[in-house]
Amino acid sequence: MRGVMLYAPGDVRVEDRDDPVLVEPTDAIIRIAATCICGSDLWPYRGVEAVDGPAPMGHEYIGVVEEIGTDVRGIAVGDFVVGSFMASDNTCEICRAGYQSRCVHVVPMGTIGTQAERARIPHADGTLVAVPATPAPEQYPSLLSASDVLGTGWFAAVAAAAGPGKTVVVVGDGAVGLLAVLAAKQLGADRIIAMSRHADRQALARRFGATDIVEERGRDGVARIKDLTDGLGAHSVIEAVGTQESMTQAIRSARPGGHVGYVGVAHDVELDGMRLFFSSVHLHGGPAPVRRFLPDLIDLIVRGEIDPGDVFDLTLPLERAAEGYAAMDERRATKVLLTV
Amino acid sequence: MRGVMLYAPGDVRVEDRDDPVLVEPTDAIIRIAATCICGSDLWPYRGVEAVDGPAPMGHEYIGVVEEIGTDVRGIAVGDFVVGSFMASDNTCEICRAGYQSRCVHVVPMGTIGTQAERARIPHADGTLVAVPATPAPEQYPSLLSASDVLGTGWFAAVAAAAGPGKTVVVVGDGAVGLLAVLAAKQLGADRIIAMSRHADRQALARRFGATDIVEERGRDGVARIKDLTDGLGAHSVIEAVGTQESMTQAIRSARPGGHVGYVGVAHDVELDGMRLFFSSVHLHGGPAPVRRFLPDLIDLIVRGEIDPGDVFDLTLPLERAAEGYAAMDERRATKVLLTV
Repeated sequence: MRGVMLYAPGDVRVEDRDDPVLVEPTDAIIRIAATCICGSDLWPYRGVEAVDGPAPMGHEYIGVVEEIGTDVRGIAVGDFVVGSFMASDNTCEICRAGYQSRCVHVVPMGTIGTQAERARIPHADGTLVAVPATPAPEQYPSLLSASDVLGTGWFAAVAAAAGPGKTVVVVGDGAVGLLAVLAAKQLGADRIIAMSRHADRQALARRFGATDIVEERGRDGVARIKDLTDGLGAHSVIEAVGTQESMTQAIRSARPGGHVGYVGVAHDVELDGMRLFFSSVHLHGGPAPVRRFLPDLIDLIVRGEIDPGDVFDLTLPLERAAEGYAAMDERRATKVLLTV
Repeated sequence: MRGVMLYAPGDVRVEDRDDPVLVEPTDAIIRIAATCICGSDLWPYRGVEAVDGPAPMGHEYIGVVEEIGTDVRGIAVGDFVVGSFMASDNTCEICRAGYQSRCVHVVPMGTIGTQAERARIPHADGTLVAVPATPAPEQYPSLLSASDVLGTGWFAAVAAAAGPGKTVVVVGDGAVGLLAVLAAKQLGADRIIAMSRHADRQALARRFGATDIVEERGRDGVARIKDLTDGLGAHSVIEAVGTQESMTQAIRSARPGGHVGYVGVAHDVELDGMRLFFSSVHLHGGPAPVRRFLPDLIDLIVRGEIDPGDVFDLTLPLERAAEGYAAMDERRATKVLLTV
């Protein structure tokens, strides 16, 4: 089969890889219908994270089940499925508490690489969710988004306690930030302030439910949020970048007793204990337990209540993955879908 | 009146101070019945925090109302009251959300100094809670503890989501840590693991409800907690010290999705963003909104259901405050009550 490999920073190749085979009786093999490039794929692409190349790439996927192991019960051959970017058994104590991304038997799908024609899915019963009927290709982008960016934005909004009566600030206008806006809207937030400097992303944020846009960043951005919230700060702040500046901005934008949900992978971030102490915020985040939300997200998509697939602004065939990485790296695209 | 002043690190004096007077119509003047020395008073005493001396000391207090301003409605002259260490109006949006310690009009009582014969209490209606009947002197220690250390330990246990079905770890065996054990017990925790190396404090922790004691610290301490929790970590961890080691130990002792409540004032603490991200914990803390809990705590004490006053292991007259500071600094006492 064909699959994407990262050889070194900036060196993405699509090449022949071995077809996956069942390894554990709980595995499934799926034929991938669509996959995509994640903001987090850019960390190794840019050399911010070390690359032990050639490494398979990709962790987002939708597709059709081709084979199942002998212990797979809930998923059948022929099912059209969406899976989380973290494979989980969904039965351990951590999973049952809703933290499937930290399952005691977790397998990060990025180690398997779903930017490919096929993939082995460990813990198929605990990782995959079948779509009720085979979807039309127009629904692929939205379903694919549920595999990571929608689920991650949703988790961030839940972690930030977004809901009725709340003013929610979203720091970061990448795919996750934009979908966190959508999630906050769905969760019933009164007011959603998107922090963005890009006209196209501002427009999408408004379409997803943002009521206000703040272009300022850092101290100026925090000052604007305070202006908009009677000097108190927001009830809920979503951090979807993962830098020192964005985390600082997020924490300072929240009111005492407010909630900060952070899902940007925190690179070179140090939090000052005393400042955090006196911020009096709730802080929660980490790799999103997408599987917790997946059944509901699929339901919302299938019923046409949300269109998260709108975050994809470039579609390329798998063979042209390298162009997709470059487009995201250069910010010419927010999110790239790869057709398979 | 007589009152405690800190002139410089280690230089505590009891001297004549001006009697307090009503400044705002929302003020009350109370005659203090008992006050005490807080672990946080040791930061300036030890020179860890700068001292702009001579500075009035103390922020914990119980006493009898002697005068009230013209706008005070809920508190009357003659009431025996307990107040929070942070004066709050209890009407602003932040107070109504339960974060009175971050009231928009907050006055830290430490700036007024309650280690004295009398004190002015700002926002009397929002800060003080009257005890239903004048208490017996035997109840003074428990009521006094509610002013800070009990309320702070309680907040930590709530922030750590202690409750039925939960395993709770308490890092720190000072007065706050010990009372966090008591709080976790009252909140219905199944198992409470106190981390302590001192036999007398271990005994008090057990009396307050600890089911297990762990003497190891740091990595070894975390390893013991993992051993005791099927390798997962605790559901709830309370941090009541405020050092890099204790915060690290607390976060690592919690399971993914678990809750860390931290109330130790975080001195020279830096949290690594990436480690925090992958810990997947909920983190919440800060100066405790004691006023939120005060009515219920007073009720529990008056009904004799809890005896938090047992944390006081040295009682001295106000005039001998310097001895009390030295005893706490040298760890000869856990918590010193000053009679007035």
